[in-house]
This record gives sequence, C-alpha cells and structure tokens, in this order.
Amino acid sequence: MSLANRDLITIEDFSNQEIEAVFALADEMSGSLSQQSDVCRGMIMASLFFEPSTRTRLSFEVAMNRLGGRVISVVEMSNTSLAKGESIADMARVVGSYADIIVIRHPWEGAAKVVADYAGVPVINAGDGGHEHPTQTLCDLYTLKKERRTLEGLKIALWGDLKYGRTVHSLAYALARFGATIHFRPSPGFEMPEHVIRKLTAEYAGILERFNGVEDADEKGLFPLDAMYITPSGPHQLANIPAVGIQIELEKGVDALYVTRLQKERLDTAAERQELEKNHRVVDRKLLRKKGFEETIVMHPLPRVDELAYEIDADPRSMYFKQAERGVPIRMALIALLLGAKELDIPAAKGPSFARKRDYHVYKRDTGLRCRNRECVTNQETETRYIKPEFEIVSNDPLTLRCAYCEHEIHPQYIASSKWHQGIAENKRYYYADSFMLGRIQQENLIIFDSEDEALARGFKLGKKSHKE
Amino acid sequence: MSLANRDLITIEDFSNQEIEAVFALADEMSGSLSQQSDVCRGMIMASLFFEPSTRTRLSFEVAMNRLGGRVISVVEMSNTSLAKGESIADMARVVGSYADIIVIRHPWEGAAKVVADYAGVPVINAGDGGHEHPTQTLCDLYTLKKERRTLEGLKIALWGDLKYGRTVHSLAYALARFGATIHFRPSPGFEMPEHVIRKLTAEYAGILERFNGVEDADEKGLFPLDAMYITPSGPHQLANIPAVGIQIELEKGVDALYVTRLQKERLDTAAERQELEKNHRVVDRKLLRKKGFEETIVMHPLPRVDELAYEIDADPRSMYFKQAERGVPIRMALIALLLGAKELDIPAAKGPSFARKRDYHVYKRDTGLRCRNRECVTNQETETRYIKPEFEIVSNDPLTLRCAYCEHEIHPQYIASSKWHQGIAENKRYYYADSFMLGRIQQENLIIFDSEDEALARGFKLGKKSHKE
Amino acid sequence: MSLANRDLITIEDFSNQEIEAVFALADEMSGSLSQQSDVCRGMIMASLFFEPSTRTRLSFEVAMNRLGGRVISVVEMSNTSLAKGESIADMARVVGSYADIIVIRHPWEGAAKVVADYAGVPVINAGDGGHEHPTQTLCDLYTLKKERRTLEGLKIALWGDLKYGRTVHSLAYALARFGATIHFRPSPGFEMPEHVIRKLTAEYAGILERFNGVEDADEKGLFPLDAMYITPSGPHQLANIPAVGIQIELEKGVDALYVTRLQKERLDTAAERQELEKNHRVVDRKLLRKKGFEETIVMHPLPRVDELAYEIDADPRSMYFKQAERGVPIRMALIALLLGAKELDIPAAKGPSFARKRDYHVYKRDTGLRCRNRECVTNQETETRYIKPEFEIVSNDPLTLRCAYCEHEIHPQYIASSKWHQGIAENKRYYYADSFMLGRIQQENLIIFDSEDEALARGFKLGKKSHKE
Repeated sequence: MSLANRDLITIEDFSNQEIEAVFALADEMSGSLSQQSDVCRGMIMASLFFEPSTRTRLSFEVAMNRLGGRVISVVEMSNTSLAKGESIADMARVVGSYADIIVIRHPWEGAAKVVADYAGVPVINAGDGGHEHPTQTLCDLYTLKKERRTLEGLKIALWGDLKYGRTVHSLAYALARFGATIHFRPSPGFEMPEHVIRKLTAEYAGILERFNGVEDADEKGLFPLDAMYITPSGPHQLANIPAVGIQIELEKGVDALYVTRLQKERLDTAAERQELEKNHRVVDRKLLRKKGFEETIVMHPLPRVDELAYEIDADPRSMYFKQAERGVPIRMALIALLLGAKELDIPAAKGPSFARKRDYHVYKRDTGLRCRNRECVTNQETETRYIKPEFEIVSNDPLTLRCAYCEHEIHPQYIASSKWHQGIAENKRYYYADSFMLGRIQQENLIIFDSEDEALARGFKLGKKSHKE
Repeated sequence: MSLANRDLITIEDFSNQEIEAVFALADEMSGSLSQQSDVCRGMIMASLFFEPSTRTRLSFEVAMNRLGGRVISVVEMSNTSLAKGESIADMARVVGSYADIIVIRHPWEGAAKVVADYAGVPVINAGDGGHEHPTQTLCDLYTLKKERRTLEGLKIALWGDLKYGRTVHSLAYALARFGATIHFRPSPGFEMPEHVIRKLTAEYAGILERFNGVEDADEKGLFPLDAMYITPSGPHQLANIPAVGIQIELEKGVDALYVTRLQKERLDTAAERQELEKNHRVVDRKLLRKKGFEETIVMHPLPRVDELAYEIDADPRSMYFKQAERGVPIRMALIALLLGAKELDIPAAKGPSFARKRDYHVYKRDTGLRCRNRECVTNQETETRYIKPEFEIVSNDPLTLRCAYCEHEIHPQYIASSKWHQGIAENKRYYYADSFMLGRIQQENLIIFDSEDEALARGFKLGKKSHKE
Repeated sequence: MSLANRDLITIEDFSNQEIEAVFALADEMSGSLSQQSDVCRGMIMASLFFEPSTRTRLSFEVAMNRLGGRVISVVEMSNTSLAKGESIADMARVVGSYADIIVIRHPWEGAAKVVADYAGVPVINAGDGGHEHPTQTLCDLYTLKKERRTLEGLKIALWGDLKYGRTVHSLAYALARFGATIHFRPSPGFEMPEHVIRKLTAEYAGILERFNGVEDADEKGLFPLDAMYITPSGPHQLANIPAVGIQIELEKGVDALYVTRLQKERLDTAAERQELEKNHRVVDRKLLRKKGFEETIVMHPLPRVDELAYEIDADPRSMYFKQAERGVPIRMALIALLLGAKELDIPAAKGPSFARKRDYHVYKRDTGLRCRNRECVTNQETETRYIKPEFEIVSNDPLTLRCAYCEHEIHPQYIASSKWHQGIAENKRYYYADSFMLGRIQQENLIIFDSEDEALARGFKLGKKSHKE
C-alpha cells in the first residue's frame, strides 16, 4: 500500500485500512526512533504555523528531523503575508516549489484544503481554525489501539467540552468508523452540536440513544450521560432498551475517558462562565476510584488547565503524556508514507467497514450562494479572487448544503431548475426550497438561491405552488 | 573562477561573468536538487531576518538545507537587539564568529554593507530597506536567460510601479549591463525616479529616449510607453528616430513583461489612491492576446495582489511561479560559491562589457556631512558611534555625493580646499559649490560643507567669487 | 568522568573538576569545530526561548548543529502557552518526550529547575529571569583560563553594574571556588547586593575587605575600589593590612577587567538616570593606558552599549568578541557531555577545593510559607497547582530561608516545634523567630510561619518567652 503524494486534510481522507497502515509503521519505528535518520534524507518539510502552536509544531518538526529530513519553519503571529495581500493559493504554490511536503496550521477554516489544491506536494492539516486537526485524531486512535490492542468495538466516554473542541468531533467520526460505542458526557452547556450528531447518524452506520437524567450522575461526581452512539454491528445493541439495561451497561465501565479542556474563552458572558464554574468537574483520584473506572484509561489532547488533577499524573491509567509522546512516531510514519519514503503491505480489512457515505451531489453553480461561516477561507477578501464556492447537497429535508471547504452547513430558501425554462423566458420560475418542487428537480439541474433578489436578478419569477403542502 | 569569501550586497558587486557563473552552477544543480547534500555539509548559515519575509527567507533556508548545510534563524518583528542598544557591527561580529555565512534582511538602508564590513564571513544582502535586493535580481535574470537562452540584446518592458519597487531598479541596472533594451511602462505617478535614470545613462554605456503620448496606449489597455533605454551596441539604435519607427519597434513586441505590485501603502492621500484605481491595469488574458505579446513572457517578483489576473496562471507565458521556484537553485549556487564549496571554470566574456563606471573619488573627511536619508544605517543612533559617513563624488554639475551605504544622493552647498590655506589662516575660504571654484580644487583636496555654520565653525570665511558666473 | 543525564541549572551544579572537564573537551573540539558532526548525530535539542535572546540562542543552536544533532526552536515573545493556561511542568514533560536535551530561557526565576524536575532529559538553563545564566559563566571562566593558563589565584576586577547583572553574581561565586581575588569596582549605586556578599563569605571559604575612598579613583578615571574578596589560600592575604598595602596591591594590576552594561532600564526616576550619566565611566584607550592595566584583559558578556569604546576593539587585550566566539565550543562540549555522547578522563583535582557549603536543612512543610519574589516560578498562577514551596534554612541569625527555586531569601517572623505539643493541644505554642527558642528547636522539628494568622489558623497560641533577650 502506498500513500505517496496523498494529503491529510480531514481524518476522512484516510480509509480505516490506511489508518492502520500508519499505525503499523509507527509501531515499527517506535522502538528505534533515533535510527530512522536515513528514511527521509535529502527531503524538506515546510512547517507553516500561522497560528500559535508549540506542541503540534514541535512534534512535526521532531518527526521530520528524526527521519533525517530537514525543516523550514514559519511561526507567525502577525498577518505578514496577508498584510501584503497575498493569497493562500500563491503562498502554497511557491512553498510547494521549495519543499517536498507541507504541514500547515491556519486560522481560516478550509485553508488546508486550499493549500492542498495548489501546493503540488503532499499537505498535512495541522489545524485549520475550528474545522479539523486530523493528526491529533490519529494520535488519539493510536493510543487507544496500543492500550486496548484493537480499535474495534471499544467503549469510549467523551467528557467535558463536546461543543467547541474540534479534536473531539473528528475523534467521534473516527470512532464511529471503527465500530465504537460512544458515551457523551458533556459539561452542561457544552453538548455535542447537532450537525455532528446528524453526521454521525446519517453518514456512518450507527444509531444514537438519548438519555436525560438516566442516572444520578451528580451524586457520583460525574457529568450525566447525555447520549450514546452505537454502531450496528456492535455488541451493545441498546435501541429501545429500558433504563435498567443502560444502568447495567454503564456499570461495566468504559475503555477510555477522553477529557477535554473547557474553552471558556468562547463564552460571552460572566454569567455563563459562572455557571460553568458551578458545574465544574475535575477528573481526580476520587473519580478514578469509582466503580466502572477500574480499567478505564484517561486521555486528553493537552494542554490541560484544571480539568485533570495533577495527583493522577502518576496513575498508570493516565495516558495523556503517552498520547503526546506517541505523536512523534505517528507523525514520522505519516510523513514517511506521504513522501513515499516508506510503503507497507497491509492485509485486507477484516470485519465490516463503517466508512462514511460520500456520494453527495456537488453544487458548483455561480448563483451567488456563499458559505455563512465568517471564518471560512472562501469568505476572505484575498481568497475570493480565485476560489469558487462549492457545496455538497447533504439533505433535501430541509435542503442542506455543506461547504466543501469548512463543512459548515447552510439552508438556502429558494430553488429553480436549469431545465424547465429552456428557451422560454416565461418559464423561468423559482420556488421555496421547502416546497414539493425540490423533489421534482433532478440534482444535476438544480439551481439554488440564497435570496429572492438573487433569483430575480437572474430573471426568475416566483412559481405558483410554493410552500410544502 | 572562485567567489569564495565574497559578499553580495548589491548586484553591482558581481561582474557579468560572475553572474553567469552563478547561473551555470544553478543549471548544473537544477536537475538534482536533492542530491546536493554533501556540498556544504558541516557548514552553517545564519539567516537573520529583522524584517518580515516568508518567501525570501524560506528559499534561502531551503537552499542551504538542500546543500546539506545547517541553518540558524532569527525571525524578529520586534526590535529586540535594538532595545538593548546593540549595534549592527557587534551583532555581525558575534554571528560571524558562529556561522560560516550570513544572510541578512534589515529595514535600514545600507545595513547589509555594515554586516559585511564586520562579519568576517561572506554576507548576502536579502533586502536592506528600500536599497537593494540583489538575489531577487539574480532570479529575474536567470529566468530571462532560461526562457530566452541569452541575456544579451533582450527587450524587456518594466510595468507598473517603477518608482518604489527596489527590485525593478536593480533589475534595470543589471539589464543595462547585459545590453538589453528596456521599455518603461509605469502606472501614472509611478515613474522611474530621476536618480535611477541618471545612473543608467551616466554609469552604463546606454542612452535614454523619452516618448510622451507616442501611442494611444489607453485604447489598447496598456500603460503608455514613457521612455526607452537602449545600450549602444544593441540592434535597436533609435536615437532621434521618428515616431513611426518606434511604432514599428513596439509592434515587434518585447521578450518579457516585468510586472510589479503597486505599493499603494506609499501613497499619502486618498485622492492619490483613487487616481491609482482609475489608472489600474490588470495583466490578464485580454492583454496577453494583443499583438506583440505572442511570445512575451510575464514575470513578477511576487507577492502579487491584483495586478496579475488568476486566469493567466495556467498560460505557458506566465513565468512568475517558475521565477520563484528558480530562487532555490540560484541561491544554492550562490551559497556554494561564496562558501568556496564549489568553483567554476568560466570562459572569458564574449562581446562588450557594459560594467558600470566605478572610479569615483571617495569623500571621507569628517566635516559634518551626513546622508539625508533617514532610513540610512549611518543615521541610526546605535550606529553613529562607529560608522564614519562616506560618499562617492558622482557629479560636479551640480556637486553630487552618493552615500557609500544607502546610495542616496546629496547636493552640498559649500566647498573649500585643504591646500590653499596651509599655514595662513587668512586664506581659509569657502565657496558656493556651484561656483567655478569647484573645478579648480583637486578632488583629493576638496572639503565639503553642508551649511555655512559648519564652514564657519572650522574657521573658514566666505570667499569672494562665489556663485557660478 | 561522565556528565550524562545531568542538568546545568546553576553554576553550582558542577564541581570545579566537572567545569574543567567541559573546558578540556572544548579545547579538544576548538580546532576542528566543523569536523564534529558525528558526535550527536540522530539527537535532538529543543531550544525553548520564552524571552528574547539572539546571541545565546544562536550559539546553542550552532553548537548542536556543529555536533551533527538537530534543533527544534521556540522563539516566543507572546505568552502563548500561558494563554491557554498550561504549566511549565506539562510543557517540560511533553517536550522531554520529544527531544533528547532541552535548553530553556524563561522570564520566571526558578523556571529552569521546574523544567529539569519534569523533563526526564538533561536540561540547560539559558537564563531564568534575574536568577542564573550558568553557561555565560562557563564562557567567562573559559576565556580567563585560555588567556591566563589557569583559573587558580587570578585577580579579577568586576566593573560597572554589579547590582542587576545576573552574570556577574554567578561569576563571583565561580571565581571564589577557583580561589580568585575579586576587586569590586561598581558604578555608584550599582554595588554588589548584600545577599551575594553574604553568600560569598558564608558559603565559600573567603573573606571580604571593604575599602572606602582608599584611592583617588575619580582622578584616575576609575571607579573606586569598593571591596575586595580574597580566598584564604590565595597569596594576597590582606586581612587588616593598612591602606598602603592595598595601594601596592592595586598597582600590580588585575588579570581581567570584567565590564558590564549598566541596566538603566531598572532605574525608576530620571534623577537616578542623570546621576548615572554623571558617574559614567567608559573603558577606552585612555583607561587601558593606565599603570596596572598593561596586561589586563578586558571582558564583557555583551551586548555592550557605550561602556566600552569602539576604539579598543582592535586592542589585543580586548577579549569580548573572543569570549562570545568561545561560547560555541563551550556549549558543544557541554551538550556532548550531558547527552553522554562524550566522556572524559580527568585527573583528580589538585590543590584545595573551595566548593560551597551545601548541607542546609531543607524546609518543605506546608505552613503557608511562600517566596516573596513575585517573579519566582512558585508564585505563578499556573504553577501553584503542583509546586510545593521549598526552602533551605541558610541562617538562624536572623532566621533566613532561601527559596529552592529562585534563591531569594525570606525572614519569617514566627516559629514553633512539631514535637513539644504532641498529643497536648495546650502545648501548641509559637514564638518570635528572633527569640532564643529558635536555638532550642531541632531543625527537623521546626515549623515556620509567615504571619500570626497562619500560626493561629493551625491552632497555635503565642508562647511566653518571646523576643530575644
């Protein structure tokens, strides 16, 4: 299996088998990190960090250095390249002509995809705003695999900030693909966003059970179980089971408790922050003594603030420093594979594949439709000169388009067909997107508008049968 | 030919033959960039960027890494070394004792020369304020040579901002040396400065023709041809030819269109900026379809903003990304030669040499004369402790001194002779610089004052015959 | 002798013999700096500079590169890791799992010790606030040794800012250990702090003589001799000698004049700064012509501002640039030894050892005692979560505790014994620290309070016999 010349922009870019290939090579290298210095000799990695990051940047740079390659770095807090008005595409082309591989962190969501589109060399996304951070997910999965021998059928509790942490969203998708059961234990107010839930259930072959107040979590010092995601082939088929069944299930414990830092800086008001302090839970010695946690490993993407007590650092179940340490062999394996410096024989996948649905229709027409995410790369002044918005139509009910760059979703209001009005201007009609007309227009003929003005400007008039009956 | 231990501060530091040597080595290395890792093994390059620059810094660092050498970097936006009051000379000595070669970018004009004066190792100027950026010029010339097979006798149009872009001034001098014809096509208000014109005509063996309104450029969507510089041996001897001759000449087209970003940030008023918008010309598909551009390559030092349309990026005549890419082999060759890691046999130059006149008298007396350029390194508080101002007397009519550091020119008002007053205080007289006395004083005896106060303070009285008759 | 896996946090971490070992290896490497590239091949140094430093960082990075190792760098002016609330300990653990050795500069005093406590790999302190900068001291000593053949029995004048310069304090301790005589010649208002004097006399086997107005220094353009530190075995036993003896001693001159930059930025008022200007002394050609300076080498840790005239740069006695240059072989030797890449046979020390007293009782009880130095790492919000304050009891008269992290001293007011009240709450008494009770309590039973509130909160009542009689 070769991963040469591939990019890693989202964790979904790699199949389960490819992820396992990275792990196999990381295993092979782990024992002899300082003896790998011939693997990428003569090759150069550009490490472009347009947002501060010490840990991720250093682990990538250590990885390339251990492989014998060389590193050129950009560590810029100020917007120097933007100040001169240069686009990401131009920067990507130039750096792509200097280096053999690019690692990029950028504050704009979707920026890594743009770099990959233009660089002409393999690109690794080291975090693009709130969008994705796939190598963190690789490190998370690798630690699970190392500690639990397998990734299939694990039970993982996601704990704390499930709302703002990008790492926890990517991890949830990845766990789903490997057939895991996921317990959602959010800090109140930090629940998993609906679009993540929808993606999990609509695109991966799993089901979601919601549990409100099922257990007296507060008394136990735990966050209450908010929901549970179960992949169908898993042994824990709980659909419609009574509360008592869940209770038993819960008492069996989880394989891992994945803790995240509450991103307090995202909260607007002091009141919100106070509420947060009130509901604050620290993972400490006391919590780890509870029933069901005997074998549970504790993970965290770091940096921690005060959600993990220092007193558990020496506990053999605490895996967060090992998780960070394993970032080096994982990134070494990844870089070596993408550069084609290593190839691997991997046996065919055993068991079911839970790969996500990927056959959405892509909408590219220039009808004024724009992503509504202000942090999306497609909405930045320097980038609009050359990026054409592009969307996947992920649902018809309601009409939902997902930005091909930042994956935020929009719900446009108006539709039309490119076929019906051919030649006859009188027939140029547009309709409400929630009318039955949506079902009658073939996706390849679909025209979508964000506003009536856009439709009128293109010569369309409102059609008769409008709202859904 | 050895370039070992030489510096590259301005493009004029290298002869045409030496430039060709760099190109020959770049050619040799181009095909095997990643097989050069033994050339500079064990050597260290200090990459000191006291001003932001992603592209130039990265290409130098890639170059040294591809040669197998190592890089230490300073990427400082804040004035840390200045904050403690350290001089450039001290910094240069210390870094020169650490590293084998220094690459420096600094906001002060002439700073690179100071580094070269004190470092004790080869120094490459990677941009010293608005003064020089010679390796950009090397890349420009190299692309011209690669695309046109030769540098001799080319026709090049300089387009856009000919006023503020330092790269375009250095390029003009270099083109003159290689016997090129240069078309000046400035955006209105961005004409080539007079001192550049003067240097071109006075120091290189060429002539300048000015053309106002010769062609109805506006109608064609071009900037009007402002002037043309022709080297005497060139085939395009146009002196005093009628407009019709130029018209024919123009229709033959140019070898390259060298486009530059308008440095709008240099304009003071909104009115100026509006005027600029009005006169805005984009190099786009439409322009490249015009007669005379069929074979014209499009060059740009990057970053671009909106003066080059993205739609021409894929056009085979667009060379700007190749130009950037070639920065790596050029800088590899340059570093290897200055470090003495490579030497080259270069046949003697064929054809005429257009090297600039270099035998000006140097004025070093401590008579209070100072460069008037506020950005000049000689005017910085930390540097005045040890730098003595130094000038070349480049003209007598009017008396013109060029700063040996930043090359800005000054026109002092008063002169005297060190000979006439020997022993007899009564004879200490000073004169107006525009009087006939200037011609009577031998340059080695010349004393120059900036003000009457300076003259009086040194015991001189105003002589009788003062102004030019 | 192996220094593998050792840390260098303060100069006192190394014995005289170990310091000589570093010098021996530096000597061995000096002649062939660029032939050492196999020594640390495959090893990685993390260069973490959380405070600006060009010179020190570059010399460490050059050193590791010359050894064939690789470098990953953090050069951060902004408090990025703090912004997310990460502790130094967590950072140290993670980076320690990436790299083979860590070099750290940090604004908090004692930070390097914390890194060493948690990193699990060798740590070199490259400056922790105003606390220590031991590799500068190594370079200073090395230059002395190279220029004077030996370190034993030298006479060194410390000149200028003896108050704020951390390098000069470390140097004084180190000189004391090697049996030097030290002349203190501070700029008025920049005298050596009392705690440094006390440490020199109390912990190293030497004596201090104070001389006020002994010589008419002002007339000679020198700073007056403030005091002299003499190690007992030295040939200059001056205790109680009359002024005339000193005069003769002075005229013999010193081996080195160690000049420091006045840290004007530490002065609060314009008046203070003016006073400083008035007393300003420049080490210049004139001063070096004076009797007694014929053989004196001039040293300076750099950067200089205006305390050393540029005119003496070419003087063969000026050693400051050589001092900087020697930073590279010294740091190469140090890194190679700490990484275990080199070991050395060193004969046993000859002559007396002046190693400092190191057997203080360590006070670790959690009785609310805190270091009063606001810059101490133990007082930073992110660090209090896991660092327990720790002190050495360095004196009983008055009771003086030295912070184990930043070495600042505190004088707590109240004491008690952990023994006397066993079982009987009535007997829980606390006393004034300056009462005779201090002598009656064994150090292992000593309880120390910062305030009466702290004592009362722990159930103690004030005992009868309180103040010293």
